[in-house]
Amino acid sequence: MGSTGEYESQRRVPVPPSKPFLKSLQARLKETFFPDDPFRQFKNLPISNKFLLGLQYFVPIIEWAPRYTFDFFKADLIAGITVASLAVPQGISYASLASIPPILGLYSSFVPPLLYAMLGSSRDLAVGTVAVASLLISSMLGKEVSPTENPKQYVQLVFTATFFAGVFQASLGILRLGFIVDFLSHATIVGFMGGAATIVCFQQLKGILGLVHFTHETDLVSVMRSVFSQIHQWRWESAVLGCCFLFFLLLTRYFSKRKAAFFWINAMAPLTTVILGSLLVYLTHAEKHGVQVIGHLKKGLNPPSASDLAFGSPHLMAAIKTGIVIGIIGLAEGIAVGRTFAMFKNYHIDGNKEMIAFGMMNIAGSCTSCYLTAGPFSRTAVNFNAGSRSAVSNIVMATAVMFTLLFLTPLFHYTPLVVLSSIIIAAMLGLLDYEAAIHLWKIDKFDFFICLGAYLGVVLGSVEIGLIISITVSLLRIILFVARPRTMVLGNIPNSGIYRSMDQYQIANSVPGILILQIDAPVFFANAIYLRERISRWIYEEEDGLKSAGEASLHYVILDLSAVGSIDTSGISMLEELMKNVHRKGLQLVLANPQSEVMKKLDKSKLIDKIGQGWIFLTVGEAVSACNCMLHTCKSIHVAVDQNAEENKV
Amino acid sequence: MGSTGEYESQRRVPVPPSKPFLKSLQARLKETFFPDDPFRQFKNLPISNKFLLGLQYFVPIIEWAPRYTFDFFKADLIAGITVASLAVPQGISYASLASIPPILGLYSSFVPPLLYAMLGSSRDLAVGTVAVASLLISSMLGKEVSPTENPKQYVQLVFTATFFAGVFQASLGILRLGFIVDFLSHATIVGFMGGAATIVCFQQLKGILGLVHFTHETDLVSVMRSVFSQIHQWRWESAVLGCCFLFFLLLTRYFSKRKAAFFWINAMAPLTTVILGSLLVYLTHAEKHGVQVIGHLKKGLNPPSASDLAFGSPHLMAAIKTGIVIGIIGLAEGIAVGRTFAMFKNYHIDGNKEMIAFGMMNIAGSCTSCYLTAGPFSRTAVNFNAGSRSAVSNIVMATAVMFTLLFLTPLFHYTPLVVLSSIIIAAMLGLLDYEAAIHLWKIDKFDFFICLGAYLGVVLGSVEIGLIISITVSLLRIILFVARPRTMVLGNIPNSGIYRSMDQYQIANSVPGILILQIDAPVFFANAIYLRERISRWIYEEEDGLKSAGEASLHYVILDLSAVGSIDTSGISMLEELMKNVHRKGLQLVLANPQSEVMKKLDKSKLIDKIGQGWIFLTVGEAVSACNCMLHTCKSIHVAVDQNAEENKV
Repeated sequence: MGSTGEYESQRRVPVPPSKPFLKSLQARLKETFFPDDPFRQFKNLPISNKFLLGLQYFVPIIEWAPRYTFDFFKADLIAGITVASLAVPQGISYASLASIPPILGLYSSFVPPLLYAMLGSSRDLAVGTVAVASLLISSMLGKEVSPTENPKQYVQLVFTATFFAGVFQASLGILRLGFIVDFLSHATIVGFMGGAATIVCFQQLKGILGLVHFTHETDLVSVMRSVFSQIHQWRWESAVLGCCFLFFLLLTRYFSKRKAAFFWINAMAPLTTVILGSLLVYLTHAEKHGVQVIGHLKKGLNPPSASDLAFGSPHLMAAIKTGIVIGIIGLAEGIAVGRTFAMFKNYHIDGNKEMIAFGMMNIAGSCTSCYLTAGPFSRTAVNFNAGSRSAVSNIVMATAVMFTLLFLTPLFHYTPLVVLSSIIIAAMLGLLDYEAAIHLWKIDKFDFFICLGAYLGVVLGSVEIGLIISITVSLLRIILFVARPRTMVLGNIPNSGIYRSMDQYQIANSVPGILILQIDAPVFFANAIYLRERISRWIYEEEDGLKSAGEASLHYVILDLSAVGSIDTSGISMLEELMKNVHRKGLQLVLANPQSEVMKKLDKSKLIDKIGQGWIFLTVGEAVSACNCMLHTCKSIHVAVDQNAEENKV
Repeated sequence: MGSTGEYESQRRVPVPPSKPFLKSLQARLKETFFPDDPFRQFKNLPISNKFLLGLQYFVPIIEWAPRYTFDFFKADLIAGITVASLAVPQGISYASLASIPPILGLYSSFVPPLLYAMLGSSRDLAVGTVAVASLLISSMLGKEVSPTENPKQYVQLVFTATFFAGVFQASLGILRLGFIVDFLSHATIVGFMGGAATIVCFQQLKGILGLVHFTHETDLVSVMRSVFSQIHQWRWESAVLGCCFLFFLLLTRYFSKRKAAFFWINAMAPLTTVILGSLLVYLTHAEKHGVQVIGHLKKGLNPPSASDLAFGSPHLMAAIKTGIVIGIIGLAEGIAVGRTFAMFKNYHIDGNKEMIAFGMMNIAGSCTSCYLTAGPFSRTAVNFNAGSRSAVSNIVMATAVMFTLLFLTPLFHYTPLVVLSSIIIAAMLGLLDYEAAIHLWKIDKFDFFICLGAYLGVVLGSVEIGLIISITVSLLRIILFVARPRTMVLGNIPNSGIYRSMDQYQIANSVPGILILQIDAPVFFANAIYLRERISRWIYEEEDGLKSAGEASLHYVILDLSAVGSIDTSGISMLEELMKNVHRKGLQLVLANPQSEVMKKLDKSKLIDKIGQGWIFLTVGEAVSACNCMLHTCKSIHVAVDQNAEENKV
C-alpha cells in the first residue's frame, strides 16, 4: 500500500467536533423514543393538513375508510362471521377460566373490537379475550376476593384491573415506552405461553371430571392434588362427553392443518360442539345426571359498568398490579401477532400506536362490562385465513356477537360446561409450541434455557414467577455479554491487508513482533477491569509463547476498536492503565479504527496525547504496516518509542 | 484489488465447525468465572509441588516470607508505626460513628490486620474500619435495636452483621463471583462516597455542638431538623474547640498536599489533636463545663465474642441484609484501593483471592469483638507514602495497637468527643471528590448523572436508596446501549477500499446504488425489532432521497456485521424478516464480515442458504466490488437476483 503525503493526511482518524450537550442529548432521546420518526410526514405542511394527518395518525379508520370498496367488504363479511362462530364459544369458555360469569365473555367480544377497528393499525388482528390473561386474572385476583363467595366484588375487581391495564397500555404508548414489550423475547413468550397452556389444560380436568370444588392455586402440584383428592367425586358421564368432544376438536384441527383450505372446519368446530353438546343435554336431560350446564344467560347488550370500578377498594393495589401484568402480557401477545401477520401482507405496524389502541379499547371495555381483551393468535389466524381485508372484519364480528347477545343467549342455557373445557383444552394444545422450543435448542442453547425457565417457573411456581425468572435471565444474558466480552487475537489473511480472528479463520497468520487484539463489546464499568486483566493475560501468554519458542520478542500491541461502540469513564481509565502497563513492559500500544464516541472521549480525557495521535490508525492493516516499518527499517523512531516507554515507567 | 481463483476461495467467510454443547459451555464458563486462569501455574507439576503452590495461592505470606529482608522490615516498621498513629484515633472515631463503644474500634485494628497480612495479596493495603460502613451499620441496625437503650443487643447485632459480611465476602471469592463488585462503577462509588461523606459531616454537628439527643435517620433533612430544633442546647465551648481542631487538621492536610514529603504531618495530625485535646480537658477540667469526653476504656486485648453472634435473634434478617450491604461496600472500596496502589508498584491483585482474605478477616473479627474492616483509602495512602514494602506494615500496626490496648487506654479517658468529630469531618472532606465529578461531567455526561443520582439518593434518601438508584441506572445504561444500538451509514474513504461511518469521516463518499449499514451492538431480542424498523427506515429514506434527487435507484443493501459480537434467535429471525423485506422491495441483502458466532447461527438456522453463501463477504470493500460488478458489467446475474426478489414477493 503506497501512500503520498496528502493521501496520508486524509486517512487520519478524525476527532469529531464537540456538540453542545443539549443538542446531543436531544438527538439521543429522539433516537431512543422516536426511532420511527413519526413526525416526518408532518414536515412542511400547512396547519390544516397537519391536523388532518394527526387525526389520521391516531384514528387510522379516517385514513383508510375512503378507499374502502365493496369487494373488501364481501371478504371482511365472510371473515367476520367465521371469526364470530369461534368468538362466541371461546368468549364463554375463557370467561369461565377467569372465574367470571360467561356472559362477560360475550360482552368482551362486542365493544372492544368496534373500538379497535377505528383506532388499530392492524388489518388482520381479531380482537377478543385471551386465555393466559384470563388465567392470570383468576389466579391473581382470586387470592384477594373469592369469585364463588363474593362474586359481585370479584367482578368489580376484574373491571378495575382491566381499567388499569388499559391505562397502563395507553400510557406506554403515549410515553413512547413501547420498547419495554420487546424485552419479552420470543423465547420467553414460547416458554411462558407453553407453561400457561399446560396449567390451563390440567385445570380443565375440573370441567371434564365434573368437579365442583377446585383449588385456586395455579401450580401443577396443587392442581393435581386437587384432582386426585376427589377421586370419588369424578363423574363418568361428564368425562365421556368431554373426551368425545375433545377428540372431535383435535380431529378437525388435524384435518385443517393438513390442508389450509379446510381452515373453516377448525374455525367452525367449537360452535359445532357447543350446538351438539347443547342439543344432547336438552334431549337427554343430562343436566339432571351430573352434567353441569351454563344455565341462564341474560339477554341484551353490555350494561354500563363505569360505576363498578372499585377505586376505593382495599384491594386496589392488587387490581393495579394485576392490571399491569395482564396489560403487558396482552400487549406482548397482541403486538407480536399483529406484526407477524402484517409481515405476511407487507404493511407496517406502529407498536406505540397499537398500544394506545389497545389501551383505549380496554379502558372503554372496563366501562362497558368487558374484561381484558387483546389480539389472540388463534382468532387472528382464522381471520387471516378467512381472507379478511381490513379491520371491518372486527366490526362484522362485533355485529354478529351483538345479534347473539340480543336474540340467541337462551340457546346456551343447556350448553354443558364440559364442552367449554374441551374447547379450552383444544385451544391450549395449540399454544404448546414444542417445535419452537426444539428450534431454540438447535440455534441458541441460552435461549432454550430461558424458554425452559419460563415454562418450569409457570408450571411449578406461578405465572408471575415464570415471568420474573425469564425476564431476569434474559437481562442477565445482556449484562453477561457486556460483562464478559470476547477478546480475539487477529491474524493476517494471506495475500491481503485484512486482519481477522485467528480462531474463526484458520488460514490467518500471526504477525511477528505484533499482538493484534480485537475487543468485541462496548467498554463499560462492568467489563473494564476484566478487559484490562484479560488483555494483560494475552500479552503475558504471547510473550511466554514467543520466549519458549525462541522467537523474536513482542514490540507492539494493536487494539482493534472497530466493535467498541461506546465507552464510559471507567473504560477510558482502563485504556489509560493498559497503556501504562504496556509501556512499562517496553511495548507500544497502538489503536486501530476507534469509532467517533471513543475518539471523542479519548480526546476529552487527553488520553489521545498520551498514546500519541500517530499511534491511532484507520485500519489494522495500516497499523501493522507502520509497526513493521518501525521494526525493520526506521530504527530511530523505535528508539524514541522505547524512551517514551522508559519515561512512563517512573 | 486483483484476485485469482485460489485467492478468492481462501477469502470466503468460513462457518466454524460445530462444537459439542458441553465443551462450548465449559469454555464459556471458564471464560466467565476463571478469566485469569488461576490453574495455569499448576499444570504439569508433581503432586507435592501442587500442594505447596496451592498453599501459597491461598496463604500468600508463605510465598513471600522467605524472600523478606531486614531492609524491607525497616521500611515496614516506619510505615506501620505511622499508620498506627492514624489508626488509633480513627478507630475510636469511626466506632462512635457506628454507635458502638469506642474500644471496639481499637479491637478492630488489632486482629483483622494480622489475618490480612497472612492472607491478602496487596502489599500496601492498611486494614481498618471504614467510615461509610460504620455509618451504614448505625443507620441500618439502629432502626432495629436502639444503641442507646439496648446497647448489648445492638453490639451483638453488629458482630452478627460483621460475621455475615465476612461469609458473604468469602463466598463471593470462593464462587468466583468477584466480578459482581465491578458493577459498582467508579462513578457510582464517587457519588456514593461523596453522599455518605456529606451526611457524616453534617451528623458530626452533634459532636461539635455538644448535643446529647440526635436523630437516627441519615437523610439531610432529618439531620438538619435535629440540629436546628435544639438551638438552645448548643454548647459554645464544644463548638470553639471543634472548630479550632478542624482548622488545625485541614491546615496540616493543606501543607502535606503541597509537598508529598510532608505526608507525615497529615498522618500524625489526628493523634496530635487527640493528645492536645485530652491535655486541654485534663488541665482545664472542661468535662465539667459541657465538653463530653470518651470516659473509661477497658484495658486488655480483644475478648472473644463468638458466643455473642445472635443467630437466634428476631433481627437476624436485618443483620444478614446489613452484612451483605456493608460486605459489598467494604469489598468495593478495599479492592479498588488495593488495585490502585498495586498499579503504582506494578504488581497484580487477584480480586477473588482478596475477597476470600477480606471474608476470613471479618469472620475472625466477628469472633474477637471486631466490627467490619476493609481497606480505607486514607490509611492505605499514608501507608504507601510512609514507604511500606509489604503486608508486614499491617503486623507492625497491629502490634502498636496491641501495645495501646494493653497499656495506653487510660490516656484516652479525657479525650473530648468533639476532637473525634473534627477528625471524622477532616477525613470525610477528603472523600468529597468534586474533581472526579467534574472529570465525569467533562468526559461522560451519563456517568456524571449516575454519580449525581448516587449522591442525591444518599443525601436526600438513605444510603441504601442511593446505592439502589445508582446500580439500577448503571445497569439501565448497559441495557439501553443494547436496546438502542447505533446503525451507521458507511461511505468509501477516497483512494482506498476502506468504508467508514459517513458521520465520523466527512471525506467518505456514498456508493451509488448501494446502501452500506453498520450495526454497532449484538443483535438480541431487546433490539431485534428496533433494528428491523430502523434499517427499514434507512432504506426508505435512502430511496426517498435518491428519488427526489433524480439519481439512480437503490439495488443493494450491505450490512456490515463486524461489530455484531453475538446474536440470539430473535436476532436471526430479525435478519430473516429483514431479508424478506429487502427482497420484496426488489433489493438484494449482502452481509459483510459476520463473526464466527453469527456465521454459526446463520448456518444452523439455514438462513445462510436463503441469503446465499455468495452474498456473504469478508469485507465491505469486497461486497461493494461484487455489487458494482453486478450493477455495471454482469447484468445477467443482476436479472437473476431480481427474479429471486420476485419469487420472494409471493
